[in-house]
Amino acid sequence: MTWLAIPQDSPYGIHNLPYGVFSANDQPGRRRIGVRIGDHVLDAGAAARAVGAPSVLLDADTLNPLMAAGRRTWREVRGALTEWLADEAHRPAVAPCLLPLAEVELHLPFEVADYVDFYASEHHASNLGRIFRPGSEPLTPNWKHLPIGYHGRAGTVVVSGTPVVRPSGQRKAPADAAPGFGKSRRLDIEAEVGFVVGAPSELGTAVPMSAFREHVFGVCLLNDWSARDIQAWEYVPLGPFLGKSFATSVSPWIVPLDALEHARVAPPARDVEPLGYLDDRGGEPWGLDLAIEVSLNGHRISRPPFATMYWTAAQQLAHMTVNGASLRTGDLFASGTVSGPEVDTRGALIELTWNGENPVKLPDGTTRTFLEDGDEVVMTATAPGPDGSRIGFGEVTGRILP
Amino acid sequence: MTWLAIPQDSPYGIHNLPYGVFSANDQPGRRRIGVRIGDHVLDAGAAARAVGAPSVLLDADTLNPLMAAGRRTWREVRGALTEWLADEAHRPAVAPCLLPLAEVELHLPFEVADYVDFYASEHHASNLGRIFRPGSEPLTPNWKHLPIGYHGRAGTVVVSGTPVVRPSGQRKAPADAAPGFGKSRRLDIEAEVGFVVGAPSELGTAVPMSAFREHVFGVCLLNDWSARDIQAWEYVPLGPFLGKSFATSVSPWIVPLDALEHARVAPPARDVEPLGYLDDRGGEPWGLDLAIEVSLNGHRISRPPFATMYWTAAQQLAHMTVNGASLRTGDLFASGTVSGPEVDTRGALIELTWNGENPVKLPDGTTRTFLEDGDEVVMTATAPGPDGSRIGFGEVTGRILP
Repeated sequence: MTWLAIPQDSPYGIHNLPYGVFSANDQPGRRRIGVRIGDHVLDAGAAARAVGAPSVLLDADTLNPLMAAGRRTWREVRGALTEWLADEAHRPAVAPCLLPLAEVELHLPFEVADYVDFYASEHHASNLGRIFRPGSEPLTPNWKHLPIGYHGRAGTVVVSGTPVVRPSGQRKAPADAAPGFGKSRRLDIEAEVGFVVGAPSELGTAVPMSAFREHVFGVCLLNDWSARDIQAWEYVPLGPFLGKSFATSVSPWIVPLDALEHARVAPPARDVEPLGYLDDRGGEPWGLDLAIEVSLNGHRISRPPFATMYWTAAQQLAHMTVNGASLRTGDLFASGTVSGPEVDTRGALIELTWNGENPVKLPDGTTRTFLEDGDEVVMTATAPGPDGSRIGFGEVTGRILP
Repeated sequence: MTWLAIPQDSPYGIHNLPYGVFSANDQPGRRRIGVRIGDHVLDAGAAARAVGAPSVLLDADTLNPLMAAGRRTWREVRGALTEWLADEAHRPAVAPCLLPLAEVELHLPFEVADYVDFYASEHHASNLGRIFRPGSEPLTPNWKHLPIGYHGRAGTVVVSGTPVVRPSGQRKAPADAAPGFGKSRRLDIEAEVGFVVGAPSELGTAVPMSAFREHVFGVCLLNDWSARDIQAWEYVPLGPFLGKSFATSVSPWIVPLDALEHARVAPPARDVEPLGYLDDRGGEPWGLDLAIEVSLNGHRISRPPFATMYWTAAQQLAHMTVNGASLRTGDLFASGTVSGPEVDTRGALIELTWNGENPVKLPDGTTRTFLEDGDEVVMTATAPGPDGSRIGFGEVTGRILP
């Protein structure tokens, strides 16, 4: 389907075409919009100019102008990119605009406006309820009535590969009389999926689930690094703050929503009837069949199944705006930790090790309860594409620095 | 002290010089940086050009470039503005750059990066604890060990005067079996003080209290509109979300930190010894003696005293970054509701009316528990300046639309 030689089973085939921002040594320091195809990156602005197409949106140094342009433009641009890479006639002009992936540096692909983190996995929320509030109902009474979420720190969203400095803060174990200060001893991961808002909305106007495609530009992977000891001491009554705000890593490639058409599945049956603005039974289902993998120091420790999420991103978008809150280009909202029902499908170490009781064994003979300095975490995912193909998400990686 | 005729007791005298962004009919739609003096606005960029001074930072359409330039530049610019308005020799060039306040439209003066809301009044936190968690200790165990805070929605921070549409959402009274959906019935105010970050900091590096002046550009008033019914149902376990995210209003004038030198006072005695990074006993005190007034439909309902706040803004800045979270130009952090010990110094209706039990009486014979459609709230404040002068904060107003 493309004139570029790529492996038949590449998850970065012509049906994917995720967007990123890169720089390369041919123009040092200049950030450009790139589109991944196989193990190459298409310099999108250069390609547009080479074929004589409009290039303003593709010549930007972030995805924000393209994201702001709205769905009609997204489809036009995606159609054009597909044609340039599929039509042999474009090859002479376009081929010189391809760079090997290994020769580019990838950057945060968009300017994050507001960042919201949800809590949409029933398995994850139940596990954390059992760990943090033993003896109580694992789910709070509101959990099945609304997608619980909170705002996180947009300014510390970083691109995959950015090292994560172990945060310091106040910690207090239940047995301690007073809190102490020091480096977090319970540094954790959260495997999540992020949704990137393109088209804004007006203050005072709710965005219904049916408008999901008009506003959401694309999807990425996200690691919501969490310092469990800092979080446990600070989070009552106003929620997580410093336990989360030191870093949130995102994958460098934003998969267009249109590339996930074959990944759409019905969400799990809901055992509480949702209020009207969250009732998706009559509309398009926005469950997504993403198969996520989490590795620690090269060893796979979990395979979280995104299709098991109780609340969908369309419900989250509708909820987030039902009070009239406006959307801005660059808003990022994340699913919350993706955990499935089985132990080896949990998306955080606190669940995988049950609060440290059952350490994870690594092939080098060591074990982990939480992350140690030097540890590297890698998350990847694929989703079904057309004709048996797979749609790949760029990996989100991070290494812990002391 | 200035060649411009302004009343002796104006809170917008030469010692204040707050910054804002305005537009006016002489150049329709063009946003310009203005400095308030008396009841006039100085077109700062035009003044700089008129006296032959560098004008790049003052010719921007937001305060962000000036804010990013750092304290040395802030002092230079403030010194220059003072000279232009004080020195009769500059009058011929500068006077034509003054516009009557009544003829300008004021805009949000800076682009908000991250917005963090703290919870720093002991009286407010105790009152809410008694109301929301009767029978428990009013303050959570962490309250006197750290300044509790959470991230709010930066995209819905609006300038004073922006109407506030009554938000809809899920509400559930304790006696209800299930939540219902509808307009908030318990719409409230929160009188707060906002601190605006100018100079950024690096990811992974804490900002100590001693660097407060290097990073904080100025101070404003803030009304953190709150839908108590939505908030009460949603906020466990991850904190406030839709109950707060529909609108946060800020005053249009940012008072430079240097204008508040005479307002600095010692904070209240702390009855729990703070950990080292929060211990301000050896350094500069950053309590601030702001006298706030809150009016509802023209009738003063509260006089919250900012000097009673348990945690100072310097402690909040140090706490917010102690985990290595970076600061960006435009970060806004707010004090939390300012409530003093007396009933008529409480900064929210839920406290003033004790959760609706003791309605506020208005001169027109009506009473209020929470806000009704059409109600207008106005917050103002002044602080001590040099030589017996007062430093005025611009008012933050908002009217409720159905």
